[in-house]
Amino acid sequence: MKNCIKQISLDDHSTEHRYMQIYRQIKESILSGLCQYEERLPSVRAMAALLQVNAVTIVKAYDLLEKEKLVRKVTGSGTYVDYGRPVVVEDTLMEDDVQRSVFISPDTINFASATPSPDLFPVRDFKTALLEVLDRDQGYAFGYQDPKGYEPLRTAVGKMAKHLGIQCENENIQIISGAQQGIDLVAKGLLYPGETVLIERPSYGGAMQAFFSRNARVVDVPLEPDGISLDALEFSIRETRPRLLYVMPNFQNPTGISYTHDKKKKIIELSEKYNFLILEDDYLNELSFSDEPAAPLKVMDQHDRVIYIKSFSKMFMPGLRLGYLIVPMRVAEKLLAAKQSSDISTSGLLQRALERYLSTGAWEQNLQVLCNEYRQRFHRMAWMLEHYMPNNVKFLKPTGGLNFWLKLPDQLNSQMLYKSAMERQLIFAPGELFYARKPDENCIRLSIAAVKFSQIEAGIKLLSQLIRLRLKLDQKETPLRAEYRDPIL
Amino acid sequence: MKNCIKQISLDDHSTEHRYMQIYRQIKESILSGLCQYEERLPSVRAMAALLQVNAVTIVKAYDLLEKEKLVRKVTGSGTYVDYGRPVVVEDTLMEDDVQRSVFISPDTINFASATPSPDLFPVRDFKTALLEVLDRDQGYAFGYQDPKGYEPLRTAVGKMAKHLGIQCENENIQIISGAQQGIDLVAKGLLYPGETVLIERPSYGGAMQAFFSRNARVVDVPLEPDGISLDALEFSIRETRPRLLYVMPNFQNPTGISYTHDKKKKIIELSEKYNFLILEDDYLNELSFSDEPAAPLKVMDQHDRVIYIKSFSKMFMPGLRLGYLIVPMRVAEKLLAAKQSSDISTSGLLQRALERYLSTGAWEQNLQVLCNEYRQRFHRMAWMLEHYMPNNVKFLKPTGGLNFWLKLPDQLNSQMLYKSAMERQLIFAPGELFYARKPDENCIRLSIAAVKFSQIEAGIKLLSQLIRLRLKLDQKETPLRAEYRDPIL
Repeated sequence: MKNCIKQISLDDHSTEHRYMQIYRQIKESILSGLCQYEERLPSVRAMAALLQVNAVTIVKAYDLLEKEKLVRKVTGSGTYVDYGRPVVVEDTLMEDDVQRSVFISPDTINFASATPSPDLFPVRDFKTALLEVLDRDQGYAFGYQDPKGYEPLRTAVGKMAKHLGIQCENENIQIISGAQQGIDLVAKGLLYPGETVLIERPSYGGAMQAFFSRNARVVDVPLEPDGISLDALEFSIRETRPRLLYVMPNFQNPTGISYTHDKKKKIIELSEKYNFLILEDDYLNELSFSDEPAAPLKVMDQHDRVIYIKSFSKMFMPGLRLGYLIVPMRVAEKLLAAKQSSDISTSGLLQRALERYLSTGAWEQNLQVLCNEYRQRFHRMAWMLEHYMPNNVKFLKPTGGLNFWLKLPDQLNSQMLYKSAMERQLIFAPGELFYARKPDENCIRLSIAAVKFSQIEAGIKLLSQLIRLRLKLDQKETPLRAEYRDPIL
Repeated sequence: MKNCIKQISLDDHSTEHRYMQIYRQIKESILSGLCQYEERLPSVRAMAALLQVNAVTIVKAYDLLEKEKLVRKVTGSGTYVDYGRPVVVEDTLMEDDVQRSVFISPDTINFASATPSPDLFPVRDFKTALLEVLDRDQGYAFGYQDPKGYEPLRTAVGKMAKHLGIQCENENIQIISGAQQGIDLVAKGLLYPGETVLIERPSYGGAMQAFFSRNARVVDVPLEPDGISLDALEFSIRETRPRLLYVMPNFQNPTGISYTHDKKKKIIELSEKYNFLILEDDYLNELSFSDEPAAPLKVMDQHDRVIYIKSFSKMFMPGLRLGYLIVPMRVAEKLLAAKQSSDISTSGLLQRALERYLSTGAWEQNLQVLCNEYRQRFHRMAWMLEHYMPNNVKFLKPTGGLNFWLKLPDQLNSQMLYKSAMERQLIFAPGELFYARKPDENCIRLSIAAVKFSQIEAGIKLLSQLIRLRLKLDQKETPLRAEYRDPIL
């Protein structure tokens, strides 16, 4: 039976009509997220039988829900929850912005895109690798590949993983067409409809979309400055008995938060104690700008419960659509079947070319170039934010990564801010993109992935001015509590 | 409420225990396919309430089902149907065989793979296109692409479609990472769990797997020599009110059957009358070896109900993982969202290279080469089958395509045949791959996609000998009714 119907109880002594009681309780379940988008409600007949009321009563309740656009009726199929529609994959949204700004105006200050700009791609070296493959493999580079991935590439990424301290064999490695596909395969291969996935709040929209698409129940758990809230997490685990926990323990997207060693250890223990899997999206561990390196959760995975996702989009080239999973053997077969039914296999030419590229050591050189470039942007960004943002704009300085997460004053209308910034050719990622439900906070994400170093100063100055301006404007509604620090000239 | 529970009725006057009645009726629903793999049964409580029996009765019924491995219990989630596990994607299975045979023995006679062998790929011309793109676009070739696809490529494939007589705009075109992804996106974007998809019997296993993965109810409709059985189709439509009909109207896989013009027209009319969508997998229309060309269903789609899938795997290079959809505008947005949550976008480098390649006219030349080669193999194959197969091996000669579908005598053990063929380095596709449920017929698929022309004669002679041999062996169990024609020497 569906979650949302579990605790419907009718009070015969209530003055409230029965259909109103039913309507109200289902509505609550939907708004609370207990009933997920696209979840099917029991048929009128079944519902009437279950609650032992007249079918007409159920029809009236469902009609009310449909009027409020909380459910939709699908002829010949049933009544479905139509609330909590999946969020967009922000990378694609932002990339559209980038594309536009690239072609319409090279002057756009792009704090929106979380993926590197094309000028940072090692095109020459990769071209060499491509040619080597074409001359060596001829037609075989274009035949179907092992759905698990091109064996030599799996060996090569296995070596990379071992450098990070991850123990794995080739059988544990699944090549994927980018991290988004990795998340989608896990949702498709391991989640039964209605099973619960716990995610961080806020989190990556593309992951939520993949879980929603599998009709999973997505429950978000708040983040603290040192990682996910353990109390809230254990409470949610007990409540929902999740099948999966999706986390980004290093330089989390969008907040930039990194988990402490202890919190990493603790969630591993919880996964064993409560028998769920952890999906670790390690999209950026290379970019540590503090002394201690950012160790993946997978390194501590003594219970073999962590599925590790690594993308080549952030630290190499997003358009390649390549990445890999490191999977516990107990789920390897299911994920392979999910891969086959999704796209059979990933392009053999690109897999072979990447393997050649990795073999030359060009990868390490390119990584150095990227890290140096990003380090400069990172420190510049942090300094500018510290010195130019009004005090009532709160943010945590991350220890690495590409993202800065700003909490704006509650009275500031962030949509208006987004508009007025756009008009001045400055773009950022609105906080709403990173929540499964309407957010309780007023945040924005600034990324240094695609913005030029030379643009950062002007960008932050402009943004802080716009915020001050909007605060004054929005003051009319609510009194302004903030004091300002004079901008440094 | 779940399909499988719809018509459970308890007979109080029966001598059969109630839990046995419930167990039996659910079991029947599962075996008949009315209850699909991974479908969730109502909770014990809900079921007890619905049938107004004691909870213990339901528990006993579910326990029996679990003992027979028809359902499995998932702690904290519910009881799921565990029967009718999705079939494999035969291309990958077969491709594994090919890989093995390619590297272990070049002498293997491969009637199994339905995809062209690497020696037929236009590697040189495609390499030229790749280099052109790398020099022209530099890093932009590796950035994120429009999730709908690289605009110039969409324009180019739009032209190709118009040559086939299909009217479409760029907004109707969605670039995909191969046809398998196209089917998966339709399943993901358009099917609610529990909705019905009608497919041909037999059909492509990868499609079934994609539909199963969406928890759709897959119902198969028998094929006749001139296309799907209209009577059976309309009956199933009335029974199940499907959301989607998946068909391959030209040189169907695996049977090679082509629909008559009238049957194509009729199923379009049915889709309008009964309000469902048609997914046309046009994987091979180029390979017509008769006088009249194989017109896609989409050409007659005056009601805009056909989603058209075109792969570049069969007539170009499978490893590229490229294809396109032509979609009615009413579903374009949902399919785009499904694409984004699946892999964000398809490799920009490969999309751009294909666009360059198409622009040179090399495509048409390559097509000619492929058609000439396949025509020779096709006629050779048909002639050999007609002259060497025992009379009690039935097959229809297709008018084009790559596949021949053989119906073996019922008394022949086709698994033993597969084994003994394997031992002699001859492989083919067992019929079981193409059925959602245990097949009622004893068929095999022979494909000419990867076999060398020079191997066909020896291959068919060997296969017919093995069949005769097995018939004699299997005779011990059942009397042999077949008369033989002497092999031509």
